[in-house]
Amino acid sequence: MALDAPAPVSLSLDERYAATRALSLELASPLSEADCQLQSMADASPTKWHLAHTSWFFETFILREQVEAYQPFHPRFEYLFNSYYNGVGEQHARPDRGLVSRPSLAEIRDYRAHVDLHVQELLARGVSDSVAAMVELGIQHEQQHQELLLTDILHAFSRNPLLPAYQPGELTAGQMGSLGWVSFDERIHAIGAADAPFSYDNERPQHRALIPACLLGDRLITNSEYQAFIQDGGYDNPALWLSDGWAAVRQHGWRAPLYWNLEAGTEFGLRGEQALQLSAPVTHVSYYEADAFARWAGARLPTEFEWERAAVQQPVVGQFLEAGRLHPAAAVTDGSPLQQVFGDCWEWTQSAYSAYPGFAVADGAVGEYNGKFMANQMVLRGGSCVSSSSHLRASYRNFFYPDARWQFSGIRLAKDA
Amino acid sequence: MALDAPAPVSLSLDERYAATRALSLELASPLSEADCQLQSMADASPTKWHLAHTSWFFETFILREQVEAYQPFHPRFEYLFNSYYNGVGEQHARPDRGLVSRPSLAEIRDYRAHVDLHVQELLARGVSDSVAAMVELGIQHEQQHQELLLTDILHAFSRNPLLPAYQPGELTAGQMGSLGWVSFDERIHAIGAADAPFSYDNERPQHRALIPACLLGDRLITNSEYQAFIQDGGYDNPALWLSDGWAAVRQHGWRAPLYWNLEAGTEFGLRGEQALQLSAPVTHVSYYEADAFARWAGARLPTEFEWERAAVQQPVVGQFLEAGRLHPAAAVTDGSPLQQVFGDCWEWTQSAYSAYPGFAVADGAVGEYNGKFMANQMVLRGGSCVSSSSHLRASYRNFFYPDARWQFSGIRLAKDA
Amino acid sequence: MALDAPAPVSLSLDERYAATRALSLELASPLSEADCQLQSMADASPTKWHLAHTSWFFETFILREQVEAYQPFHPRFEYLFNSYYNGVGEQHARPDRGLVSRPSLAEIRDYRAHVDLHVQELLARGVSDSVAAMVELGIQHEQQHQELLLTDILHAFSRNPLLPAYQPGELTAGQMGSLGWVSFDERIHAIGAADAPFSYDNERPQHRALIPACLLGDRLITNSEYQAFIQDGGYDNPALWLSDGWAAVRQHGWRAPLYWNLEAGTEFGLRGEQALQLSAPVTHVSYYEADAFARWAGARLPTEFEWERAAVQQPVVGQFLEAGRLHPAAAVTDGSPLQQVFGDCWEWTQSAYSAYPGFAVADGAVGEYNGKFMANQMVLRGGSCVSSSSHLRASYRNFFYPDARWQFSGIRLAKDA
Amino acid sequence: MALDAPAPVSLSLDERYAATRALSLELASPLSEADCQLQSMADASPTKWHLAHTSWFFETFILREQVEAYQPFHPRFEYLFNSYYNGVGEQHARPDRGLVSRPSLAEIRDYRAHVDLHVQELLARGVSDSVAAMVELGIQHEQQHQELLLTDILHAFSRNPLLPAYQPGELTAGQMGSLGWVSFDERIHAIGAADAPFSYDNERPQHRALIPACLLGDRLITNSEYQAFIQDGGYDNPALWLSDGWAAVRQHGWRAPLYWNLEAGTEFGLRGEQALQLSAPVTHVSYYEADAFARWAGARLPTEFEWERAAVQQPVVGQFLEAGRLHPAAAVTDGSPLQQVFGDCWEWTQSAYSAYPGFAVADGAVGEYNGKFMANQMVLRGGSCVSSSSHLRASYRNFFYPDARWQFSGIRLAKDA
Repeated sequence: MALDAPAPVSLSLDERYAATRALSLELASPLSEADCQLQSMADASPTKWHLAHTSWFFETFILREQVEAYQPFHPRFEYLFNSYYNGVGEQHARPDRGLVSRPSLAEIRDYRAHVDLHVQELLARGVSDSVAAMVELGIQHEQQHQELLLTDILHAFSRNPLLPAYQPGELTAGQMGSLGWVSFDERIHAIGAADAPFSYDNERPQHRALIPACLLGDRLITNSEYQAFIQDGGYDNPALWLSDGWAAVRQHGWRAPLYWNLEAGTEFGLRGEQALQLSAPVTHVSYYEADAFARWAGARLPTEFEWERAAVQQPVVGQFLEAGRLHPAAAVTDGSPLQQVFGDCWEWTQSAYSAYPGFAVADGAVGEYNGKFMANQMVLRGGSCVSSSSHLRASYRNFFYPDARWQFSGIRLAKDA
Repeated sequence: MALDAPAPVSLSLDERYAATRALSLELASPLSEADCQLQSMADASPTKWHLAHTSWFFETFILREQVEAYQPFHPRFEYLFNSYYNGVGEQHARPDRGLVSRPSLAEIRDYRAHVDLHVQELLARGVSDSVAAMVELGIQHEQQHQELLLTDILHAFSRNPLLPAYQPGELTAGQMGSLGWVSFDERIHAIGAADAPFSYDNERPQHRALIPACLLGDRLITNSEYQAFIQDGGYDNPALWLSDGWAAVRQHGWRAPLYWNLEAGTEFGLRGEQALQLSAPVTHVSYYEADAFARWAGARLPTEFEWERAAVQQPVVGQFLEAGRLHPAAAVTDGSPLQQVFGDCWEWTQSAYSAYPGFAVADGAVGEYNGKFMANQMVLRGGSCVSSSSHLRASYRNFFYPDARWQFSGIRLAKDA
Repeated sequence: MALDAPAPVSLSLDERYAATRALSLELASPLSEADCQLQSMADASPTKWHLAHTSWFFETFILREQVEAYQPFHPRFEYLFNSYYNGVGEQHARPDRGLVSRPSLAEIRDYRAHVDLHVQELLARGVSDSVAAMVELGIQHEQQHQELLLTDILHAFSRNPLLPAYQPGELTAGQMGSLGWVSFDERIHAIGAADAPFSYDNERPQHRALIPACLLGDRLITNSEYQAFIQDGGYDNPALWLSDGWAAVRQHGWRAPLYWNLEAGTEFGLRGEQALQLSAPVTHVSYYEADAFARWAGARLPTEFEWERAAVQQPVVGQFLEAGRLHPAAAVTDGSPLQQVFGDCWEWTQSAYSAYPGFAVADGAVGEYNGKFMANQMVLRGGSCVSSSSHLRASYRNFFYPDARWQFSGIRLAKDA
Repeated sequence: MALDAPAPVSLSLDERYAATRALSLELASPLSEADCQLQSMADASPTKWHLAHTSWFFETFILREQVEAYQPFHPRFEYLFNSYYNGVGEQHARPDRGLVSRPSLAEIRDYRAHVDLHVQELLARGVSDSVAAMVELGIQHEQQHQELLLTDILHAFSRNPLLPAYQPGELTAGQMGSLGWVSFDERIHAIGAADAPFSYDNERPQHRALIPACLLGDRLITNSEYQAFIQDGGYDNPALWLSDGWAAVRQHGWRAPLYWNLEAGTEFGLRGEQALQLSAPVTHVSYYEADAFARWAGARLPTEFEWERAAVQQPVVGQFLEAGRLHPAAAVTDGSPLQQVFGDCWEWTQSAYSAYPGFAVADGAVGEYNGKFMANQMVLRGGSCVSSSSHLRASYRNFFYPDARWQFSGIRLAKDA
């Protein structure tokens, strides 16, 4: 898949709007109408829903508020494509999204075109800073859903015994060097976003934190290293696991990362079933597995502050969605001491997702965007092979429940200094 | 919907084969590929699955056994479209049928064409009686799935907040007469199928049974009568219910038949949402509701023997699939003492589904067709508005769990004489 | 345990009342207050609850109605010890019975004494036939709960890793003869109770039924025979099982009867853990297991009518509660063609529990006794080693869900003639 | 209840051992054997189990390792009374603890005496520092279980419709002042235990943290204040709740703190059902409720570091177990700016329970004590009305899942400065 370049931040707002909206359709283009209908678990959504909901976001938070006498595309879409904004009203039940065969995919495309027409007219007329910020939020929001569109269809395809490939093609293998460690001193560091072109509320306010000295692994953990953990009985030894993690292992019968086939020596991904690449980063592991692996390796996971303090010194380079590989790749020494900081896999941190000191949510329903999820979830950092590069930065905080495995989540180790 | 006439039994076997196979595609024709993918509960299957499984039946039980060097259409379809025949091998998990977006609908049509080509070649060459009987079983099997295709898509559409209509169109209303009773004497009667052109194993062997004297209601119970039960607090009075029925009422919060909207005074069906027709038979009720209604009415449900003994005296006439209404209609006095015996709604009986004396299953996997379900289910008789008339007879035994509501199931009353 | 003889029907009503009430306390006497508190599943009840509920029955249906200015023992017991009589009022949730540590066991004994005093006063003054019938019903009801008290404490003890014995002591073994068959002709038979000293409503009215010719096994199936079924892969072969039965095998991981320890070659019972006696009847099997065994053996289970027609020709002799063994014993040839018809184990029949033609429930809450359970349950016949002999007769119908295993349920085979 | 004074730290180790062991029996003394058997949910344990498990701890970690040729009291108790130490071996299933009626309470008392005899002999002979530390850990462990014994029996009694009182007696009411705020500056503070006489591993190592300036409420939130939240529709407004919290409200139907009876205006506690005291601290609220209340009040919950930094300046005084009230009491101005810092109610903090920098677990199975629970739980601070005062300190970290309500958990507010 040769993706069109996603929206670089050097572009104007209307150019980025257009590029982002076009990318969503491009990501859906290899899929049939039946594919776009699939919902394989309550946590995942159909492609069609992602295409509709991202449009709903612009319609609800911009067009309904900024365009006089705006006629919504369909009177029931406000209800049907609201994800979780109680301030907007009741929502269609999340596990039932896969049951909405109508509106059809064509109608959802029409919906997108309708919304685009009005947003682009609005932008052409010129908008206030606050409206521009809301359009920017809508673009970032759609980028998040582009990543989910891919992880969700991967999960759905993994449940089909025929294991269809989203984008068939053999993956090239890389080389693996031995794991090194990079050392960091104790220091007081400014954590969070200050003057980024864009940041989410949960990255703010920037605040000072005392970060202890530590060592960070210089690349992500590989399939080869994770295989050694499995062969050493990692999944059979409760001493390596958090109590809740061990309960999950037993309940779900976990024996390997989500998409591994241990018998066949293969891993399923957006490129279809492939021989397991030993040098590529392990991915689709839960927090519990990442934590158990770290304990087995005599190390631990980094805190999100340790990670950010190291990442802020690096450019946002790596293997992202626009590379078109759609799967993590082996680390390539690029001269920087830490490799794979951005891209390839989201990195589980040992930090529970919570509010920064002074955190405040936006007024209105859009204030539900991030804050209400600050319980029971863990922070992941760095982005993945299906994230747009323009969507990422050192202060970016992703978060998932510790048993989630369907994201491109991987492992970087840390140690006390 | 003006359906082509379904296969009358006067036709030859190959004519009936062709007509039955064509009807399945015709029933799917108003549906999009996304519609055909829907599975709204584990008990229901996607349209696409019904189209594939009925072909699997012919491929598995006829082509693989009768056609030398037969090449199956696809090596994994044996697994993917096996419903419940353990004798054939492992099956794809039933609740996951809705996740199989590939093969596509077009591929399933190709599968059907492939199977049809080979079955028709086989029939053209001439077949033994036992093979002809198996083809006949495949035709009857497909007719059953045609009915399920419609009840399953109705259930799926009912879960879409937009309530799409399978076949839009307003239903004409009828007149309702008062309920009368027809009297039957005690007698020893021959129950079950003897020399019917076709019968299932569960209708055999014919055997004598002593049937007590009884009265049967002369038509189905109407929406108007059922509304009186609701208004009298039927759903709030445990004294009217079986213990398991009362538990179901409380667990599911039942307040009315499955597709009623009490507030709006409407009923959803294959024709879309319609004003509730008071004279039409109540439908989409569980056994528990039928039983509770009967108790409230000072009556009871008939046994399957009482029903069969009365039905055997009548021709198989009524409102079936080929009428194209797709919903039960008010009784029309047609000169016979008992109306609506066949068609309109399946009639719950008070008989648990069990083996007749001397019951024996066929050899091989096809022996799993009926016998292994003889626990926990209740017998329904008479067929419905979405049954093919050529599929029905007085000895026909349908069966569902007592809490099932998504079939066109209704109520006929009985009393001790 | 040398039990006092339970109440023979030749005794007067007040003598039988006294004997039955005394027996309940005797059955509880080997148990500590903590034992009497145990509830190991929602279907089972604590011993203390059985002692209280049987008293509640007399208080509610006799004392409150017949004794002027009767003062209930405690104002909340009406609620607390109502089992399922909606006509009396709301009930304490069944799964929570084990949480009621207060009232104490001593208070429940006081409650029993209070009720006994008033019932015995009432009986001494002389009562009408209808009140005498209600006292009789209370006695029979208490006998049912005596059996449940034992099966429920057995289940609770089986969940204790120390496997305590209700009544320790080694069981003597018996001899096993080969299985023979007794033949019965087709005939019209009067089924149900007519002029028995006592019968439940579900045994009435007596009515004629046409019973086909059949063969019945001349004794219960033994552990040895059931072991052969296991060794032949019975639990691994879906072809032997009803569909719902196979689902139960897979869901629960059934590999043997409920209380067998396959590795140790032992069986747990009221006498504690014992070496499996090969000649003793297999017990604690579900309907599904009984049905699968019968299919494996090339036979089937009898209908309840086939059983009753054979049993009615026999005296009610066998191994009952008063023998004090508390476990089924090997058949002993006693001259009658059918052995073990009464006692040892309840015998699963292939008949779903349903109403006899003309069945009518009693007025008032006591009408909930039997009728509301006529769905989803199977009839068992004959009584067990923990039934009182005075409680049994040929027309007696016991009923449990087909997956129930904690009763002393066993297997008699039948065949078509 | 006039409790004997619990073990002050000024006592010698053997004196504290004796006092602690005696207190457990004293706490169980108002309970019957049936009471001691109750297990009302999987999270709670029977009193008898607490009495046994605390003895198991000494037997397993001290007697088996330190006493030559030690004869365990019972060969199966190692399995039966192991809570969650995988390093010791398999454990009896937690939800089944209430099913172990045998060993009896008397046998458990014998078990305790057996263990006491051997521990006291060991202490009399003199022990190494590491053994003394393990005895100290056993004492602290037993103090934790003393608190759980009380909260667990309270939960069990709350499920009894008769609402028995653990220790009957009317609670005296107090006065309530208005809520004030105490201000704290930003500073780097040493968090955690350094040279305390005893601390758990999860309080260590002491480490420096940068704590922002903040305000803390000067007392706990009262029932009166919480009532205002309810009356303002707090439980109906999703905008006040975390997403997981709102899901819990809807799933469980929460309308008030766990033991409130809104209709009756009462609160259930160890003293039985009492009129709700408006001036007393609200208790038995989940983290979600504490968080929602704080949002409604325009405030937030403190972090555990903010709390500890303030608490470390105060003596450990307050209303503890030894006061014998067994319920939180209204704040009494005692001259200190912050009231109720220790005792009355555990205070939910907004800090997820996680490892301090440099955290290391002990070798062996005892290392499972705290560390494996560092996911999905929230930290509570300060102790409660059923904590022993000698068990508490400023660095003490308690932790529970955010939906837990059966502990004496309450609310202190915080604000950004």
